[in-house]
Amino acid sequence: MIISVGTIGLDTTRTPFKTVEKVLGGAATYSGLSASFFSKTGLVGIIGKDFPEKYYKTLRERLDLSGIKIDKKGKTFFYDSTFDYGFTKRKSNITELNVIKDFILKLPDDYIKADYVYLANNDPDQNLKALEQVDKPKLTVCDTIEYWIINKKEKVKKMMSSVDVVVLNDDEIRLMCKEPNLIKAAKKILSWGSKYVIIKKGEHGSLLVYDDFVFPASGYPMEDVVDPTGAGDSFAGGFLGHISKKGKLNEHVLKEAVIYGNVMGSFAVEDFSVNRFLTLKMEDIEERYQKYRNIVRF
Amino acid sequence: MIISVGTIGLDTTRTPFKTVEKVLGGAATYSGLSASFFSKTGLVGIIGKDFPEKYYKTLRERLDLSGIKIDKKGKTFFYDSTFDYGFTKRKSNITELNVIKDFILKLPDDYIKADYVYLANNDPDQNLKALEQVDKPKLTVCDTIEYWIINKKEKVKKMMSSVDVVVLNDDEIRLMCKEPNLIKAAKKILSWGSKYVIIKKGEHGSLLVYDDFVFPASGYPMEDVVDPTGAGDSFAGGFLGHISKKGKLNEHVLKEAVIYGNVMGSFAVEDFSVNRFLTLKMEDIEERYQKYRNIVRF
Repeated sequence: MIISVGTIGLDTTRTPFKTVEKVLGGAATYSGLSASFFSKTGLVGIIGKDFPEKYYKTLRERLDLSGIKIDKKGKTFFYDSTFDYGFTKRKSNITELNVIKDFILKLPDDYIKADYVYLANNDPDQNLKALEQVDKPKLTVCDTIEYWIINKKEKVKKMMSSVDVVVLNDDEIRLMCKEPNLIKAAKKILSWGSKYVIIKKGEHGSLLVYDDFVFPASGYPMEDVVDPTGAGDSFAGGFLGHISKKGKLNEHVLKEAVIYGNVMGSFAVEDFSVNRFLTLKMEDIEERYQKYRNIVRF
Repeated sequence: MIISVGTIGLDTTRTPFKTVEKVLGGAATYSGLSASFFSKTGLVGIIGKDFPEKYYKTLRERLDLSGIKIDKKGKTFFYDSTFDYGFTKRKSNITELNVIKDFILKLPDDYIKADYVYLANNDPDQNLKALEQVDKPKLTVCDTIEYWIINKKEKVKKMMSSVDVVVLNDDEIRLMCKEPNLIKAAKKILSWGSKYVIIKKGEHGSLLVYDDFVFPASGYPMEDVVDPTGAGDSFAGGFLGHISKKGKLNEHVLKEAVIYGNVMGSFAVEDFSVNRFLTLKMEDIEERYQKYRNIVRF
């Protein structure tokens, strides 16, 4: 089983072409739904009384929700942001932590034996607490964001040294390591204790680094991006999903997992919210994986 | 035969780690030396009385120089620039056009029958004049820079519509097309008349676009960049060099040529000026090509 720990929230997303209000979002939501195509996946997080029934139904049909706490007095995490014309920059307008603020994370008994754990971009203290509760997982993955790197750098470092795989984007790793070269930065993170670092580079794809091994993967060519929200978490879901499905880890599986991650990210951005995942089928994923393979082969 | 048309100059390059003064540089120099590993290559350009004999000797040993005019009264093109800590931004300090300013480009008789033509980032009017003089070339390639896009946009467009391959970087194509999506921007350029567009993305590799075909290629992973000057022109030299060596053009050769381009760019940045090319051997190029192939294979 995979567990995806993090925000389950409501997003208002403004692009130059369209705005959607209070749609289903959150890092754990994207990674969980993405992973659910590959393996049984559970969500860990908290929602409020205002969380729409239809979104709960969407999640329940695809995921195990025994790790979700419902706070009947509070409001769901809410994030309002605006993308620029080129979808390269995002401006945060409103971030309401709401029920997440005082959430005391406790895993259900089933989840303690989870083999695969994704810790999304939460407070590193909360991620570390989740990690403590899991009993001998096969692979643990964490992400983070600029906010925690700036405000809780030592705890982020501790979290990164406690997992197997650190996933983060190029700006974040440069900020975290104060090193402009991505490979050098990745090796710095590896020196803290994790086994693998994956740098997400948006349209430019990703870079997997471990020991002296580097695997650069181009982004899947996209002409029509609708909403980049959740691409990185969907990447992580596909990555962990494929490894979980294979049940083993070697160089070959790792590379495949990175490509499945890229593919899942490419689907996520084709529509607002998690909408693309609601109609997606495993055969679509396999078809794009093969198409990607043919495109980059030379 | 390949001809490489453009600047042959002297560079003062300042990096946070070292500064080199009045070293051999220029777009035609980089592309020409890069192409010379694959096929016979001639340079077209102008130099002044101050052009050091040792640099002339370096060029003469590797290239046909009958297309170089020496202006005994003038000074060689000079460019002084500073790179930032991450080698991602370059600041121009001094640009002295000198002998290039009033250069009337006339190809030697031999060059009129050149099969492969690279028009570096010169004045598009000058590039168009060079193009007019070549008799039925097999493949023509042009590059440009921000300066010409801003100051002579219509002429840049005319040049782009007159060649087979347009090579330019991601910032330039976005500026030229006022379109943030790179594939859409490439298709816009293709609609003007060229057959192929290659977008250079520095450390993120490149994107080849033609018809409905997209070939994204990751950058060769580099931990130690010394001087990024000339990477793009070296890319073009390797690209054209491989096609010239193969003597034919199909999807397979095109993809290979892009990878040889990336490989030549990766060598160029390993040392200041064109120094890396002076010790490089074809077997080093083949070795890195194979290494790249193994790295990206999955």
